[in-house]
Amino acid sequence: MSPLHNDRFLRALLRQPVDRTPVWMMRQAGRYLPEYRATRAAAGSFMDLCKNPQLACEVTLQPLRRYRLDAAILFSDILTVPDAMGLGLSFAEGEGPQFAKPVRSSADVAALGVPDPEVELRYVMDAVRTIRRELQGDVPLIGFAGSPWTLATYMVEGGSSKEFAKVKGMLFEQPKLLHQLLEVTANAVTAYLNAQIAAGAQAVMIFDTWGGALTPRDYQAFSLHYMSQIVANLNREAEGRQVPVILFTKGGGGWLELMADSGADALGVDWTLDLSEARQRVGRRVALQGNMDPCVLYAPPEPIREEVATILASYGHGSGHVFNLGHGIHQHIDPAHVEAFIEAVHELSPAYH
Amino acid sequence: MSPLHNDRFLRALLRQPVDRTPVWMMRQAGRYLPEYRATRAAAGSFMDLCKNPQLACEVTLQPLRRYRLDAAILFSDILTVPDAMGLGLSFAEGEGPQFAKPVRSSADVAALGVPDPEVELRYVMDAVRTIRRELQGDVPLIGFAGSPWTLATYMVEGGSSKEFAKVKGMLFEQPKLLHQLLEVTANAVTAYLNAQIAAGAQAVMIFDTWGGALTPRDYQAFSLHYMSQIVANLNREAEGRQVPVILFTKGGGGWLELMADSGADALGVDWTLDLSEARQRVGRRVALQGNMDPCVLYAPPEPIREEVATILASYGHGSGHVFNLGHGIHQHIDPAHVEAFIEAVHELSPAYH
Repeated sequence: MSPLHNDRFLRALLRQPVDRTPVWMMRQAGRYLPEYRATRAAAGSFMDLCKNPQLACEVTLQPLRRYRLDAAILFSDILTVPDAMGLGLSFAEGEGPQFAKPVRSSADVAALGVPDPEVELRYVMDAVRTIRRELQGDVPLIGFAGSPWTLATYMVEGGSSKEFAKVKGMLFEQPKLLHQLLEVTANAVTAYLNAQIAAGAQAVMIFDTWGGALTPRDYQAFSLHYMSQIVANLNREAEGRQVPVILFTKGGGGWLELMADSGADALGVDWTLDLSEARQRVGRRVALQGNMDPCVLYAPPEPIREEVATILASYGHGSGHVFNLGHGIHQHIDPAHVEAFIEAVHELSPAYH
Repeated sequence: MSPLHNDRFLRALLRQPVDRTPVWMMRQAGRYLPEYRATRAAAGSFMDLCKNPQLACEVTLQPLRRYRLDAAILFSDILTVPDAMGLGLSFAEGEGPQFAKPVRSSADVAALGVPDPEVELRYVMDAVRTIRRELQGDVPLIGFAGSPWTLATYMVEGGSSKEFAKVKGMLFEQPKLLHQLLEVTANAVTAYLNAQIAAGAQAVMIFDTWGGALTPRDYQAFSLHYMSQIVANLNREAEGRQVPVILFTKGGGGWLELMADSGADALGVDWTLDLSEARQRVGRRVALQGNMDPCVLYAPPEPIREEVATILASYGHGSGHVFNLGHGIHQHIDPAHVEAFIEAVHELSPAYH
């Protein structure tokens, strides 16, 4: 593997000194970029794009050609894991994800096994290897997976949901069955992330998109517990370096202290709390990643720059902050506004280091 | 007006002693009830039902005939106000609300006026008067309105939104224009709630469904500021009694202390924080209303009862708690499960008073 030229991102996640705040964006390889839309159109379906390592590598690298980003993130989807568990994933155009075989009964859960990442998810591992080769050590590559709870919401509902009626029905009515489902999913995610690390991922992030839909008690029992289990079983070193783990529960601002005890190196934070408060609450236990409202990017460059300044000031001096949005970038954002955002972090953050 | 036989709800909102914890449900007059669906089908469209005071009264009273609830809530919709401001509201079947004339430009904002509630919203005031008459003092009637920020999201987007691209675009790009829109909307809401109180509403609730989508700073400037302004301008006494005001920001658990300073008597709380923590944070300043996850009602009676017990224990001893869900009841809930919920509050709560 090529030596890493820019390790600012990895160092900030471990709260080691950096010269400026590193920056990347969730969903940075995405529909707001015309070159992404062109590659996606040529590939066929969204899953065709995910399953083609060369094209997945191409879209992963596209934002890095435009912007001075400090990390690349594997182009993939959190639902590759339940797909590999045999649930039959498809994306109907404009409809969101759908599973042909949702998980509803104890027989459905019992039928689930842990996929071999180098077999059923080989296309992801090939993408990781291809991207690492093509990156030539420019910036680190982030691997990722969905949290067991978040994956379970899709697996039980059969797709996206606003109310989580079926999965929460299972939670309250058959908590043991849901725990069984979460256990096997956690094992699948652990194997999947370890395989990504073995293939070349230099940091990993666990996306708990729907943990914030739970009560504090259920969050701990049905989401955080399994994420902590995964974190405890990851290979945290590769190529002679530490592999930092980032944990992101959207809407989990109330539970930062609990998350800081998960064993993760860093926590993702959405825009509903100030980084100053977040930092004060987690102390020196973890780094923080976030937290600009993605909607700020609808604004012209000047307000974007002001918001960047506000967030940098809110975190304050010293390492331990990775600048990011508080959620994925929206598809109708002007790429020039992204440029203004990234450049503002470059320009304004050295004063804090 | 008939004298009030059961004032438990009003007393709890003012933290006065009660014999047991009062209980009602957001959206208790709704689609989970077969008798609601029958009335709704006979009425025509959803707005036809809202605009017919006799039918609005009928569906308001339906849940009270089934369950031992401690309050009735006016059957209406938060979007009646922007409709009366001339935006042309319709509900396409299965599509959610739509405005024919969304607010986008400064000319659009300048064209908005404050409706006269007894003229443009006469049908709501007639519904309030009809319901009060038919209630015969059994339980108090709650009036309500949407918060200016929440109404503005619909007014600017033209309907429901997941990303709030247009209204947040306006927030970051033309904050003064958005403030102008919020100001006139706040004036409209103030007049509307005062008219409801004059017509017979015995408590009022402000629904800030989308305040939780903002940053802490923007929440204060664009949502809480206008709610506090409304609260300050309400007529807080009618028929010789205090008219309590409840403020509910969904996803606003991080900002309870700020909300407690709004002048409201009580705060609605969703299920993402424990009532024990909420109570500790707001102290004796306000009462609390909530906070069972509506999904608990998918479970059978026994887990429902356990959850009620947990929430009662979490709030603890003494007045100042109104039992409710943390959001509106879902449409596919079994009415027998609601019965189990309400009865559990009746049975288990006296021990705390």
